[in-house]
Amino acid sequence: MKAWGGRFTGLPDETSAAFGRSIEVDAELALDDITGSIAHVGALRRGGVISVAEADALVIGLTELRDEVVAGTLAWKPELEDVHMNLEFALEARIGTVAGKLHTGRSRNDQVSTDGLEGGLVGRALRHTTAVMPGHTHTQPAQPVLFAHHLLAYVEMLERDRGRLADTRRRVNMLPLGSGAVAGAGFALDREAVAAELGFEGVTRNSIDASGDRDFVAETLAAVALAMVHLSRLAEELVWWSNPRFGFVRLADADSTGSSMLPNKRNPDPAELVRGRAARVVGDLAGFLALLKGLPLGYQRDLQEGVAPLFGSCRTLGASLAVLTGVIERLVVDEVSMREAAEQGFSTAAAVADGLVERGVAFRAAHHVVGALVRTAEGRGIALSALADAEIAAALAGSEDPRSQALAQEPTVPADLRAASTIEAALARPDLIGGTAPERVAAELAEAARRLGLD
Amino acid sequence: MKAWGGRFTGLPDETSAAFGRSIEVDAELALDDITGSIAHVGALRRGGVISVAEADALVIGLTELRDEVVAGTLAWKPELEDVHMNLEFALEARIGTVAGKLHTGRSRNDQVSTDGLEGGLVGRALRHTTAVMPGHTHTQPAQPVLFAHHLLAYVEMLERDRGRLADTRRRVNMLPLGSGAVAGAGFALDREAVAAELGFEGVTRNSIDASGDRDFVAETLAAVALAMVHLSRLAEELVWWSNPRFGFVRLADADSTGSSMLPNKRNPDPAELVRGRAARVVGDLAGFLALLKGLPLGYQRDLQEGVAPLFGSCRTLGASLAVLTGVIERLVVDEVSMREAAEQGFSTAAAVADGLVERGVAFRAAHHVVGALVRTAEGRGIALSALADAEIAAALAGSEDPRSQALAQEPTVPADLRAASTIEAALARPDLIGGTAPERVAAELAEAARRLGLD
Amino acid sequence: MKAWGGRFTGLPDETSAAFGRSIEVDAELALDDITGSIAHVGALRRGGVISVAEADALVIGLTELRDEVVAGTLAWKPELEDVHMNLEFALEARIGTVAGKLHTGRSRNDQVSTDGLEGGLVGRALRHTTAVMPGHTHTQPAQPVLFAHHLLAYVEMLERDRGRLADTRRRVNMLPLGSGAVAGAGFALDREAVAAELGFEGVTRNSIDASGDRDFVAETLAAVALAMVHLSRLAEELVWWSNPRFGFVRLADADSTGSSMLPNKRNPDPAELVRGRAARVVGDLAGFLALLKGLPLGYQRDLQEGVAPLFGSCRTLGASLAVLTGVIERLVVDEVSMREAAEQGFSTAAAVADGLVERGVAFRAAHHVVGALVRTAEGRGIALSALADAEIAAALAGSEDPRSQALAQEPTVPADLRAASTIEAALARPDLIGGTAPERVAAELAEAARRLGLD
Amino acid sequence: MKAWGGRFTGLPDETSAAFGRSIEVDAELALDDITGSIAHVGALRRGGVISVAEADALVIGLTELRDEVVAGTLAWKPELEDVHMNLEFALEARIGTVAGKLHTGRSRNDQVSTDGLEGGLVGRALRHTTAVMPGHTHTQPAQPVLFAHHLLAYVEMLERDRGRLADTRRRVNMLPLGSGAVAGAGFALDREAVAAELGFEGVTRNSIDASGDRDFVAETLAAVALAMVHLSRLAEELVWWSNPRFGFVRLADADSTGSSMLPNKRNPDPAELVRGRAARVVGDLAGFLALLKGLPLGYQRDLQEGVAPLFGSCRTLGASLAVLTGVIERLVVDEVSMREAAEQGFSTAAAVADGLVERGVAFRAAHHVVGALVRTAEGRGIALSALADAEIAAALAGSEDPRSQALAQEPTVPADLRAASTIEAALARPDLIGGTAPERVAAELAEAARRLGLD
Repeated sequence: MKAWGGRFTGLPDETSAAFGRSIEVDAELALDDITGSIAHVGALRRGGVISVAEADALVIGLTELRDEVVAGTLAWKPELEDVHMNLEFALEARIGTVAGKLHTGRSRNDQVSTDGLEGGLVGRALRHTTAVMPGHTHTQPAQPVLFAHHLLAYVEMLERDRGRLADTRRRVNMLPLGSGAVAGAGFALDREAVAAELGFEGVTRNSIDASGDRDFVAETLAAVALAMVHLSRLAEELVWWSNPRFGFVRLADADSTGSSMLPNKRNPDPAELVRGRAARVVGDLAGFLALLKGLPLGYQRDLQEGVAPLFGSCRTLGASLAVLTGVIERLVVDEVSMREAAEQGFSTAAAVADGLVERGVAFRAAHHVVGALVRTAEGRGIALSALADAEIAAALAGSEDPRSQALAQEPTVPADLRAASTIEAALARPDLIGGTAPERVAAELAEAARRLGLD
Repeated sequence: MKAWGGRFTGLPDETSAAFGRSIEVDAELALDDITGSIAHVGALRRGGVISVAEADALVIGLTELRDEVVAGTLAWKPELEDVHMNLEFALEARIGTVAGKLHTGRSRNDQVSTDGLEGGLVGRALRHTTAVMPGHTHTQPAQPVLFAHHLLAYVEMLERDRGRLADTRRRVNMLPLGSGAVAGAGFALDREAVAAELGFEGVTRNSIDASGDRDFVAETLAAVALAMVHLSRLAEELVWWSNPRFGFVRLADADSTGSSMLPNKRNPDPAELVRGRAARVVGDLAGFLALLKGLPLGYQRDLQEGVAPLFGSCRTLGASLAVLTGVIERLVVDEVSMREAAEQGFSTAAAVADGLVERGVAFRAAHHVVGALVRTAEGRGIALSALADAEIAAALAGSEDPRSQALAQEPTVPADLRAASTIEAALARPDLIGGTAPERVAAELAEAARRLGLD
Repeated sequence: MKAWGGRFTGLPDETSAAFGRSIEVDAELALDDITGSIAHVGALRRGGVISVAEADALVIGLTELRDEVVAGTLAWKPELEDVHMNLEFALEARIGTVAGKLHTGRSRNDQVSTDGLEGGLVGRALRHTTAVMPGHTHTQPAQPVLFAHHLLAYVEMLERDRGRLADTRRRVNMLPLGSGAVAGAGFALDREAVAAELGFEGVTRNSIDASGDRDFVAETLAAVALAMVHLSRLAEELVWWSNPRFGFVRLADADSTGSSMLPNKRNPDPAELVRGRAARVVGDLAGFLALLKGLPLGYQRDLQEGVAPLFGSCRTLGASLAVLTGVIERLVVDEVSMREAAEQGFSTAAAVADGLVERGVAFRAAHHVVGALVRTAEGRGIALSALADAEIAAALAGSEDPRSQALAQEPTVPADLRAASTIEAALARPDLIGGTAPERVAAELAEAARRLGLD
Repeated sequence: MKAWGGRFTGLPDETSAAFGRSIEVDAELALDDITGSIAHVGALRRGGVISVAEADALVIGLTELRDEVVAGTLAWKPELEDVHMNLEFALEARIGTVAGKLHTGRSRNDQVSTDGLEGGLVGRALRHTTAVMPGHTHTQPAQPVLFAHHLLAYVEMLERDRGRLADTRRRVNMLPLGSGAVAGAGFALDREAVAAELGFEGVTRNSIDASGDRDFVAETLAAVALAMVHLSRLAEELVWWSNPRFGFVRLADADSTGSSMLPNKRNPDPAELVRGRAARVVGDLAGFLALLKGLPLGYQRDLQEGVAPLFGSCRTLGASLAVLTGVIERLVVDEVSMREAAEQGFSTAAAVADGLVERGVAFRAAHHVVGALVRTAEGRGIALSALADAEIAAALAGSEDPRSQALAQEPTVPADLRAASTIEAALARPDLIGGTAPERVAAELAEAARRLGLD
């Protein structure tokens, strides 16, 4: 007897029914869900949230469900919208209301943690505290920065990602139970008591909104998509840095693949996959917003199409974080190549100009004087630090700035400016919060390690 | 021995390797692919393209592969990019070059045909040649149109979709074999002979382009997405027309679902799913273009992420066409409700105005006169055809247009305008190619039936 | 003298330069920006945040800038990335560091407030506290709900939107000043003091992140896109409800447009535009994530392409909120049509089934009994409340449930069930938080009015 | 007198009206449109399609319109949907039906031609016929290829783009005139005669489809988005190749920008902008499909939101093609750096393995032998061509392949393999259509030059 057969005389069309079902997806999701649930029961018991007897009942019920899923005998109810509601319903049918305790202190995006990768980045930074690399703008060398400073930029992004996922969770962790089909349940429930018992932040306040809204999907997808974009940027850098022209890093053998055709290849496959999957999550987000855009209120079957993107994107983020954590931990870093690159492209020019400004030259004029020095050095194929006294004096004299012209006469200035043009001198300049000066980076690194419990 | 192990000393990291693999997706795709291939062998043999012996070899090889996939013993080679290249490779390893004949005259988007739904729409139109419905603009009733005319609008869209898929196929049906990893194969092949033998339109002309380009994915996704958008628009109409306030149609029991909570529900699930899946294909397209956007040339692992969207979207389109074909065939149409709706909203007002223009009133003035008639009729809650002679004369007299003022004096004009305000009179006016006049629609319907072989 | 000419010998190509500039967009944005700034100066002065002298300096500087923009004489510096940085730079050049005070307590998405529309919805609900409409699932009538309950569903969505915009603001409102080009500023600044003075939450902690990250764009676009999706859903409902088949509402003349061709039309243009613009913001979000996805760190010119979507989407949301606020305020609501619709589709069937459950019938059996009643009533074209005693008894007797069979014998049951099938009885059932029972809706309405300061 | 005021008593709300208008966009588009139209008149007259008198009438009418747009006195009719329909209408009002001739042989995407950039790429390739660069897979060096071969890969993409735009044009170049508001025009028109006169391919066959369909927008956006993705890939390569670690190219001063903060910078801005704008077009496409997805048939105001993306994306593509054409023409190519890079990464390993296969070693064994050689050379930091005889013999002897073991004994083999490991030997191997062997590339280059009229 079909749950809603009372009114119907015809039988469902098989093509339509098959279209609505997605058994392969369902079965896969179901096994994931059950595995996660069994693990969660353990956590709840250890935390004293549920009793041993309750834990036993839950595990037995979940194990039976798993066997049925594997055997293909679990009767899916399409009207229950998705695999997760099916499992909840089936579990409650077996073991009663204790089933509801499974939700305590749990939410979908809880399971995605940025800690691992943040720890990996911090750990990697701690192993290379003096390594220097070119800071880029426009993908061209701009100024020298510490490699650790660069890695910490990703820690900042991941912290914001963590914050977004937490905000999302807080906002959507409201008990919808009791909303009924659209008007509210037909029997009085103490929804606030249920919410408190099950660890929700509160209860939804409108049954029409609660049954037809999918903010929790859209907001989670947006947070996950942006986190994946951050990982994609890291992956992009790893891919290019692995190219021998850069030679900054080499992915460990464990993280590289070869080629069946080309014996010389080492390919940064994991990084490429992260980048590719970021694109898919962006597509999932765009598609889901398109899905929602013109729907009137109330549940509609279209909304089922949000389930796979939601779970898929969370799994993708979790897997991508894990993969990059391993890649970063095992990465082979070539500090010599990085240093060599940091010295290319006259990357200390701004520091030299700042030195002139400190000596009283107007900023615009200082910029032009150093621009001229760069042109001279480039023409001769030498570094700024190799310029002759006369060349430096000529550039200073060529400025319209009177202070620059005066400096052209001072015999110690060329040596001073050459000293300002070293990597170390340039690194030391941005000595303010967020700057790349070594002690500033060390402080941020220590703070991150402390926050992550790595100290 | 791993195909590319020669250079490596470490072993692959399991997390990374698992991330790159997608066994569940692969196995599912593989079985689909093999089933389709076996069917295609039959077609090739019946068409005399291959010999019976070749057909036997292919079927035996494919069957063996299927058994291995099911048993989980087929050794997937991740370096072969995707399941399809794996199957080709494995088949060739078993039965030699005859494996290549499988591609003859075949292309991925071949398998998606719009014929079924076009036939369903034409068949449905032929069953309701006189049914009238409101033609809408801005989702508000505008003018009466034939229901058949409305259905034929979708046939037009599907014809363009068919054209786009055919253009795509023609453009991408170029043999890439021989492109090697990136520089071209290291051994001379007569690529044009192979292409001719296997039914390709020609050969790709640049190995770098052929190995790293994915136009065939992007262009197919775009064509499929637009086709799905068309189906989504049809689905949207079916959903709203099913609402009792419209009452134009009722999906057959076979195409409806009930609700486990609400005994009164009949839900147009198949239409909602088509709409929801259209959104996902839009997302797949956006995601894939995002994936491609910044990649340098040459194969990259990111590109693997195009496989699932490509095949998935083609399957979605095929399934959506099949589902809507069934829905349209089994649809219960309520011509009475449609007619009633066509008479709401003063839908014949434009026809009345056209009648005034024929009598010499300037278009702008005629529009205003009829606007005034509409306001009068609306105020009295009656149809245009129920206006009194005096009311019509007053509206004509109120215009600044001298011809209108003259008509206000002619005693037969009110009756003439009332006659022009009937549904039948309004329907008959657009008597030009593409218009809704019954004989025009009949001609287009006959032509569509002929083209589809339904006559 | 160009700011960075020192190193260059060639002159910029005009095509490239024009491509990078977008003067029309810039000028428009600039005038908006200046107008908003002048208004903000007033607020700062009134709040005692700045002195009268500072306010005067700011207003004079801004007015001069505006004149230059209008006259086309302001020299845009393309290297300053966008119009806003140009204006800041130009203002500081004129009036010195007091220019920085303009940022105090201000952030971009501050300027978008959902209050207006929430107030409009609440006000509208207060004018129709007893109006009933069909609650829909699958766009089909499901259960009766109060119109006020439906309107409050949108208030819930807007509250979450407000929360997301506030979270975003809090997260991104960190002073980036002092990050320099990429390595940090070359001169020590007390960044925390500046942040405190200017009303930022804190300072960014990493110069590479601060200069190359665009989370503030991506997160704002995501929050705005979801808010626009909510408005699009409201717009969708207004469009369909305006159709005479629904007849629930009529947009005021002020919010409707006619047609130059069809004298009978009233088109809900504002609602359609909101819906269309929601789609564009979804596209802006997808495009911007695609833009970011594969970029290495550090500023890149691509990022400029985020400026127009960011400002454009905030303006679109602000304008859409204003437009719908007006539409809702001026809306003509037809409570009679709504009530009539609420009585269609056997919308009280679930309430009848709940009544059986209260009398001891198992839920599944009760659902089937009522399904049979619906089939009978539908066959006869009558309402549930018009069923004969014998028909009700027969349905109860036909169940396998013993309690149902027993009820079939009780003479008062048919009348009781007919009483349970009225709109009022059905409305009263969901008497729990979030349910549509009138006193529950009244409580939520009062709370919303209080929160919005409307009480 | 407003065109549709007859029925209305209220006045339009100003907020709503402003929301619907987009005067700034309109005015800009209008001037573009008129300028293009005047140019087109010249072409039509020179081609003998229109008479001198007709041309004069058109130019006079267009010039008057331009003056009105500039003066702000042209009365825009919002009900005409967009600026283009407004201009058509206004022109016809001035000069009568000759206005229609303006469309002859013209379509929107006509104006975007890939010829310029294809010519630039071919011209650039002809200047570097012997330059060698690394062919990449996974962004790692794979095999040496000719720089010209790499450039021709983009010519292939652009040829497909051209094909897509042409297919789109052919498909959508159907006269919609005569479709009326939705039901067809109320007066008989000889639509086929008009279409023939105006240069359309034919007439649309269904008025509902013609008035509410936007395939021409969606298909054009898809073709433009994919073309922009191709340009973005080229831009991405130019950006990375400009980094001194690659040093393959240097954008001319005319195509570079400096930095107001960093005197050493040369930034590849034009390439970055192309990349960024590609992302926006991808977003435009996604947004427009989202817009269309759930609309019922018939014109709706949402569709207006397709106008700006359509024209904007065509302009973006045109501008991007022009910008990159200039960049490619002025590019400074460093053949020495390219050659140096081509020799890194053991890029000739596959050629050496192919040499072993030619000598009878099984492919898999040859791959492993060469993998061992790569490992040895990498360990010693030398090239394959610098390996000692004994090292080569040891690798051969270490294989399980008997033929390899036999070759280990042949004294001339090491020298042969070293010879096979040169760039020139590797380049010569892919001697088949599409391969990088110099004469193959020369043939393709000659063919492309011929096709583009450059020979």
